Amino acid sequence: MDARHNGGHDGLELVLLPMVLMRDFSTDHAMLSINTATVRKQGDLLEIIEACARHGIRAISPWRDQVATVGLDAAVKAVKTHGFQLSGYCRGGMFPSDAAHAQEARDDNRRAVDEAKALGAVCLVLVVGGLPHTSRPGSAVSHDLAGARQQVEDGIAELLEYAKPAGMPLAIEPLHPMYAADRACVNTLEQALDICDRLDPARTGALGVAADVYHIWWDPNLYRDIQRAGRERLLAYHVCDWLVPTRDMLTDRGMMGDGVIELRKIRQAVEAEGFSGFSEVEIFSELDWWKRPMDEVLRTCIERHKSVV
Amino acid sequence: MDARHNGGHDGLELVLLPMVLMRDFSTDHAMLSINTATVRKQGDLLEIIEACARHGIRAISPWRDQVATVGLDAAVKAVKTHGFQLSGYCRGGMFPSDAAHAQEARDDNRRAVDEAKALGAVCLVLVVGGLPHTSRPGSAVSHDLAGARQQVEDGIAELLEYAKPAGMPLAIEPLHPMYAADRACVNTLEQALDICDRLDPARTGALGVAADVYHIWWDPNLYRDIQRAGRERLLAYHVCDWLVPTRDMLTDRGMMGDGVIELRKIRQAVEAEGFSGFSEVEIFSELDWWKRPMDEVLRTCIERHKSVV
Repeated sequence: MDARHNGGHDGLELVLLPMVLMRDFSTDHAMLSINTATVRKQGDLLEIIEACARHGIRAISPWRDQVATVGLDAAVKAVKTHGFQLSGYCRGGMFPSDAAHAQEARDDNRRAVDEAKALGAVCLVLVVGGLPHTSRPGSAVSHDLAGARQQVEDGIAELLEYAKPAGMPLAIEPLHPMYAADRACVNTLEQALDICDRLDPARTGALGVAADVYHIWWDPNLYRDIQRAGRERLLAYHVCDWLVPTRDMLTDRGMMGDGVIELRKIRQAVEAEGFSGFSEVEIFSELDWWKRPMDEVLRTCIERHKSVV
Repeated sequence: MDARHNGGHDGLELVLLPMVLMRDFSTDHAMLSINTATVRKQGDLLEIIEACARHGIRAISPWRDQVATVGLDAAVKAVKTHGFQLSGYCRGGMFPSDAAHAQEARDDNRRAVDEAKALGAVCLVLVVGGLPHTSRPGSAVSHDLAGARQQVEDGIAELLEYAKPAGMPLAIEPLHPMYAADRACVNTLEQALDICDRLDPARTGALGVAADVYHIWWDPNLYRDIQRAGRERLLAYHVCDWLVPTRDMLTDRGMMGDGVIELRKIRQAVEAEGFSGFSEVEIFSELDWWKRPMDEVLRTCIERHKSVV
């Protein structure tokens, strides 16, 4: 039996294989990327970039609001000066809206593609949005979840027509089901991959997924769907940890190793498909890591990247 | 096309059909059941039973700790005196444990079956447990999610051997994925139904699911899996609502109509399969409903049962 095809019920082979198949992260942090939301409260994007450079970090993934604060040109210049790679750009999406807000959603997403392109990101991450009135505030209240999901798919299809000629891959990020109403109504890899298969059946690389362990670790079909995604669809890999208890639904993510997610097992599965990109740390932590000095957070990310990711 | 086979993307037929297929709840509350956790802070089980009787409610679903507080005999007597039906008994489960706590889990679950039988419940609801150390405190720490899931299935298989001769159906309740680590590692109807199919392939009625809208409303495969469950596997139906924002992961459930769940659409799907049982209200609400007088909560449950469930 090929352990890559093992859904996880028979743990023996999966325990033995990682040493063989996984990249060795233990000696350096060359494959670490910092999602800049992880230290968003400690400084602006330029300060974060300086700090990452100080710690020998080679890659980041910035957020649009952070770029806007310092200005796109300054952000591009800082990224190029330090030779940073961008493991992603956060974020496009928020597709569901009422008719009055459809143009806003369209224009906003095209600008996100342009910015990602200017910054040289490997993909634009899509947080697809929940119901119309939460996704695009001001939209009429709707509880039509299937309708919102259809709007998401239509919105991605349309954005793909813009992003593909621009050479900017779109990475659908399935978000944890607890965000289905207000952040993203794409909640499993299966659902994201179904969209990918319909909109990009040729697996061209123009459309794929951002696999964030925080959102998908619980999924009974996780290993099946990582395999289904394969190399062409795996555009980004995000890590943090799930704390028990979790005290806040949005801003209580844990540092890798402090929670219950089987990080090694998931990375092994992703790398078994040929994923060779960065391991991007994305932690929203109002109660803990956002309160600590930036250098301490980055040092800890590096340590945990080596020891538990 | 048969709208029952419609996954929800084409809403037209689903909008037209409910009037035809659904039971009419608008004129009375004969099919309302109160899960007694909904008013657990306002009185003990005997007081809750008195209050439900006062409001013409015919069915309840009590929790084991509430029964234990007043004593099983007194609970049985109160239920029989008022002629209540029990739409379920909460709860068996918490199967994952280390070896030292396996006997405790086994004995505890058999007692739950005995109590459910004494009370005349239509099923014992199973909240299956998360990782061993959260499911059975004192167990060694483990992050092996696949292993926990295997322990759940093994535990249900063993309990079924005890419950089946006793005539007590077991209802696996998939819990929202946000509880995967600490309350239940069965998180979708699909996963619960896979277990049912393996352990009760003949669909005898001895094993099925408790479908609680709070846990499953977000699932992209919801309507497919309600249909897959069918009449034989649909043992209980629970309602409340998902609030936006949700301020606490455990105790901020909403009253029906106050959130975003498409209650009518889901009940229509459940009833289309032949479900004819009670609609059980189960609301954990530290911030709101647990603070209000019991009579006000029950009155509101009745009103919303008629108007939005």
